[in-house]
Amino acid sequence: MKIAGRHYRTIWACDDETVAIIDQTKLPHRFEIVRLTSLEAAADAIRNMQVRGAPLIGVAAAYGVCLALTRDPSDAALDAALATLLATRPTAVNLQYAIERMKRALEGTPIPKRKAVAWRSAALLAEEDVATCQAIGEHGVALLREAAGRKGAGARLNVLTHCNAGWLACVDWGTALAPIYRAHDEGIPVHVYVDETRPRNQGASLTAYELGAHGVPHTLLADNAGGHMMQHGAVDLCIVGSDRTTRRGDVANKIGTYLKALAAKDNGIPFYVALPSSTIDWTKEDGLREIPIEMRDSAEVTHMTGRDVAGVVTTVSIAPLGCVAENPAFDVTPARLVTALVTERGVSTASLEGLRRLYPEASYE
Amino acid sequence: MKIAGRHYRTIWACDDETVAIIDQTKLPHRFEIVRLTSLEAAADAIRNMQVRGAPLIGVAAAYGVCLALTRDPSDAALDAALATLLATRPTAVNLQYAIERMKRALEGTPIPKRKAVAWRSAALLAEEDVATCQAIGEHGVALLREAAGRKGAGARLNVLTHCNAGWLACVDWGTALAPIYRAHDEGIPVHVYVDETRPRNQGASLTAYELGAHGVPHTLLADNAGGHMMQHGAVDLCIVGSDRTTRRGDVANKIGTYLKALAAKDNGIPFYVALPSSTIDWTKEDGLREIPIEMRDSAEVTHMTGRDVAGVVTTVSIAPLGCVAENPAFDVTPARLVTALVTERGVSTASLEGLRRLYPEASYE
Repeated sequence: MKIAGRHYRTIWACDDETVAIIDQTKLPHRFEIVRLTSLEAAADAIRNMQVRGAPLIGVAAAYGVCLALTRDPSDAALDAALATLLATRPTAVNLQYAIERMKRALEGTPIPKRKAVAWRSAALLAEEDVATCQAIGEHGVALLREAAGRKGAGARLNVLTHCNAGWLACVDWGTALAPIYRAHDEGIPVHVYVDETRPRNQGASLTAYELGAHGVPHTLLADNAGGHMMQHGAVDLCIVGSDRTTRRGDVANKIGTYLKALAAKDNGIPFYVALPSSTIDWTKEDGLREIPIEMRDSAEVTHMTGRDVAGVVTTVSIAPLGCVAENPAFDVTPARLVTALVTERGVSTASLEGLRRLYPEASYE
Repeated sequence: MKIAGRHYRTIWACDDETVAIIDQTKLPHRFEIVRLTSLEAAADAIRNMQVRGAPLIGVAAAYGVCLALTRDPSDAALDAALATLLATRPTAVNLQYAIERMKRALEGTPIPKRKAVAWRSAALLAEEDVATCQAIGEHGVALLREAAGRKGAGARLNVLTHCNAGWLACVDWGTALAPIYRAHDEGIPVHVYVDETRPRNQGASLTAYELGAHGVPHTLLADNAGGHMMQHGAVDLCIVGSDRTTRRGDVANKIGTYLKALAAKDNGIPFYVALPSSTIDWTKEDGLREIPIEMRDSAEVTHMTGRDVAGVVTTVSIAPLGCVAENPAFDVTPARLVTALVTERGVSTASLEGLRRLYPEASYE
């Protein structure tokens, strides 16, 4: 997608020794590109959320393997790299998916060829992610077109989203936002209510930023406000991403997603989840019991970073000294609250039957 | 309640020309007492939320009338003061209640006696609020005692609250927090999950502060996290305050309350609302349609204030430049999601029948 008229992806290989990323911890205040040249730098970038979003985490891990093998293509180095990257973050299953893909491509490859195969495999994963997100956009825009049709010509279509499942969460296009970009580009008067998404504010700092850069009308909301907006008819549909989806359609996504799904249900508003199939964990059924939820640092809640009046990016403490927070990063929305899943192969109910129809080749036992 | 061992109320008359308040916009970073000597200062203090919380707003308005009449006890000045104070904030009905009380006390009073009657009436309202909150604490602690009994001796009782309905929202004791202070003081091992309550963070800045000052164990949560905590059995009950309650038990309270009530319902967790009867608006039935919801400034969402590393209180912008937010300050929780109302006269179902049983004298047609 474009920033100030220039096309960017969130991650790209500069050459066969360097990967570039947009440092997402600096947005929306500064647009900075960071170059990664080691496994450690890649693992840190995932851990510190310089790259984040389930699909992008997967691709970043794949490039992390490339950086490791560029220095040392041995079996031991490969195993260590896979293990290090897998441990960076626990909830998004795309990390496992990408690492599995890299492992399969590399294990049978003779050591001298590994570096080249790694870079080709990572590039392929990145291209697949772009194509997947484009397809999600195509399937999803049909739902928005329909909803806009029901409202009548010229009426603003109000979509609520939580966190950032836009192009910054992927390589390009996005998952939840891909249908919105498509709708906007084809002239549907779409307007997005953006949950700020505490504690890390990916909505305010990333979703508002990328929608603004593309010219999509949007309004920021405190996370607390979405239920009220739905009660008053201000939201026509919700669409969010997923960090892991079980085979029966339970969805782990950014903390707070569950609350919005409850409000959508209570007000008869469709609640869609957009996801690439790399986000489906066929080995899991009951999301609440089986998906590990990452606990992050208390300081993410007790402190906030922003731009002061002088334009200096500053971190401030917003709680009493010594106050401690619990900070679960994701929650699980049970399938019963999800109207439909939007995948690269089409739209399905949030159920084993629906997912099996789209992915008959999946094995899960 | 106590701060650093010294007992404070949130508002008090210094003499018959000056009212003192704790400036709540400065907490938790600075403890500052502000002296008000004019109607305008009192109205500004309510508008700018130096005093906030439905019961405290009512008492502050009563003292605002005193300050006005101290300068000019004429009919015209009285009418103007009542109108100015009534217009400061639209949602909390306590403002109307207090102004109605002052009006009744003063209209029949000869002009030379008005000043004295005003100060006596405001002091009476303040004392009534303290007594009311004590009674709410007594009735509410029975619910906590019961819940603690079900968990067994020594087990931590986890209570989730939203916004600040503590003593800082009242004159003393609080509404939702009064039962918690009582429980803590009688040795029930109560622990409070404190929603930070964006955008103004009354949870992080006021509830965490006052619980900490009294020594009640507590943990801060992003507003998004409460649903997840309830799904995982980490919350035994919820208790919140109210800014206006309709005669059938719909509750207008701080934005985001509705989302927590939905999550409590979905997880079979009791959801209690503590309120003085001054918060009941007998003229309203359907909260969603009839209660006016205050819309506040976009900057409350796009900016945050905190303490930087040097200890300086600083405001930072946390959204892209030019980003606009909608900022409804309250939402309405329908009575069907409320387990019980805790009032100064006892506990009732959230229904007309329940409220009528406690307040048979109320007329509403």
